[in-house]
Amino acid sequence: MRIYSGERLCSKCFTKSIEEKVKATIARNSMFKPDDRIAVAVSGGKDSITLLHILAKFEKLFPKASLCAVTVDEGIRGYRDEAVRLAREYCQRIGVEHFITSFKDLFDVQLDELVAVLKDKVRAGNETLSPCAYCGVLRRRALNVVARKAKADKLALAHNLDDEVQTILLNIMHGDAPRIARVKPVLGESHPMFVPRVKPICEVLEREIAFYAYLRKTEFQSTPCPYAPTAMRNDIRQMLDRFEERHVGTKYTVFRAVEKIRPALEAAEKETVLQLCKTCGEPTVGETCKPCEMLRKIGVK
Amino acid sequence: MRIYSGERLCSKCFTKSIEEKVKATIARNSMFKPDDRIAVAVSGGKDSITLLHILAKFEKLFPKASLCAVTVDEGIRGYRDEAVRLAREYCQRIGVEHFITSFKDLFDVQLDELVAVLKDKVRAGNETLSPCAYCGVLRRRALNVVARKAKADKLALAHNLDDEVQTILLNIMHGDAPRIARVKPVLGESHPMFVPRVKPICEVLEREIAFYAYLRKTEFQSTPCPYAPTAMRNDIRQMLDRFEERHVGTKYTVFRAVEKIRPALEAAEKETVLQLCKTCGEPTVGETCKPCEMLRKIGVK
Repeated sequence: MRIYSGERLCSKCFTKSIEEKVKATIARNSMFKPDDRIAVAVSGGKDSITLLHILAKFEKLFPKASLCAVTVDEGIRGYRDEAVRLAREYCQRIGVEHFITSFKDLFDVQLDELVAVLKDKVRAGNETLSPCAYCGVLRRRALNVVARKAKADKLALAHNLDDEVQTILLNIMHGDAPRIARVKPVLGESHPMFVPRVKPICEVLEREIAFYAYLRKTEFQSTPCPYAPTAMRNDIRQMLDRFEERHVGTKYTVFRAVEKIRPALEAAEKETVLQLCKTCGEPTVGETCKPCEMLRKIGVK
Repeated sequence: MRIYSGERLCSKCFTKSIEEKVKATIARNSMFKPDDRIAVAVSGGKDSITLLHILAKFEKLFPKASLCAVTVDEGIRGYRDEAVRLAREYCQRIGVEHFITSFKDLFDVQLDELVAVLKDKVRAGNETLSPCAYCGVLRRRALNVVARKAKADKLALAHNLDDEVQTILLNIMHGDAPRIARVKPVLGESHPMFVPRVKPICEVLEREIAFYAYLRKTEFQSTPCPYAPTAMRNDIRQMLDRFEERHVGTKYTVFRAVEKIRPALEAAEKETVLQLCKTCGEPTVGETCKPCEMLRKIGVK
């Protein structure tokens, strides 16, 4: 087994090396307190199942800490339903409390329905956003709501190194460079209704997580979402993978490069004053929050 | 003829559109004063010959301005000698004063000799920098010296949009993100011995300059440098071209994206105090300037 550093490790040492790396990320970024209640966002894919597995292992060392899992069912027939089942089964197996919510419960619309409405709008030229843009905003809201319901102090997300670096480059190629400052291991929001988000596996390569999951023989959702990611993210993923092959370590380098400019970007950012959305009561920057705005736009609310 | 915006233009309109775009870049960045003496850095390639052509055209409208050309002969046998000849002939033809200097004159070493020494060092494991890294540092110095000799108020460089965006991504992929703030249309240095550098064609796509040059039927050096650019820049060029094909406008978008974060990056930059290099007397940050340091490293000085 070979990883980016050129080491060859047996499966036991490999497993340990990944867990040590996650531990280091957690420690360096002061992600958790010993008595935190941690909600892991579990979609049922390899990244989130692996994150839950690793955090459950760590949690045993902290008697005052507690762990639970939260899952959002977006309502994607033939895809998410299976993932939710896998997530539920895994949580039962390792004895972790599991909270499930859905777009239907929270927003009274399933993603499948939303995509159908969106398609008509795009066809009529009234919409330029992709299903992923909608899903991302609504899922972020749903995760915060369910984490709060679970009384979690932290919400742990399973973004891996590839995800983070793709997002950085996507923001640059998309023209939204200031946003790269928001790609970081800890996202603490300045409102008590927001559960701070942490990313314990954000320094682990995607293929290392895949291999870790393979070694654990964990069952996870491996089919891709039918509303595949945007063309641009796919192109960036391909490009990055090709780059990493030819210039080993590029993904880490980009991740670290952004760390160097983040303080400057954050210092220049305006302090945002949050208020409660007049429609749903969730904290937001403007009068109406993004999820409510989106739902109204497609006629659901 | 089709350019990025989707317009179809006849050759006359295309030529005009490029010149208008250069004018706009010059105006927006206040690159020149009406009585400036402008030195154009002419390598003999299509970009610099085109820049000289365009600025010579503009200069006629400003009776108090004056134009000259400066060329650095790095000493690359079978490559630069031909380019220098082309640059000289073109300057004679349009009646522009031409100043030529060489690595041999200034540093007492030709690039060919330097590369030979470097090869031995790399083989022995004592050097990791490429010939391009050396050439870049020395050429920048040489251009400043010859522009000063030409009594120029501004040094105009022929970096096109592709060059600039490649450099931005190269800095990110290389881990030197703070440097992206230095990729900008005007580089004014805070020392009277530095001639401020401006990039009038930095918003024009490379293929548009190539087409402009083709329409003008100008003769230029078209063979690539034998010490080809680094593997990473080539990979980035390819990747960017592929991206631009699939997502038209990406190069502009990246260029503009960096504009958005530049103020923040510049605000965070420490003020550098310049002094004169104790070896050569040129302005520099440390005690010894980068060119002297490099020349000493390879045993030339």
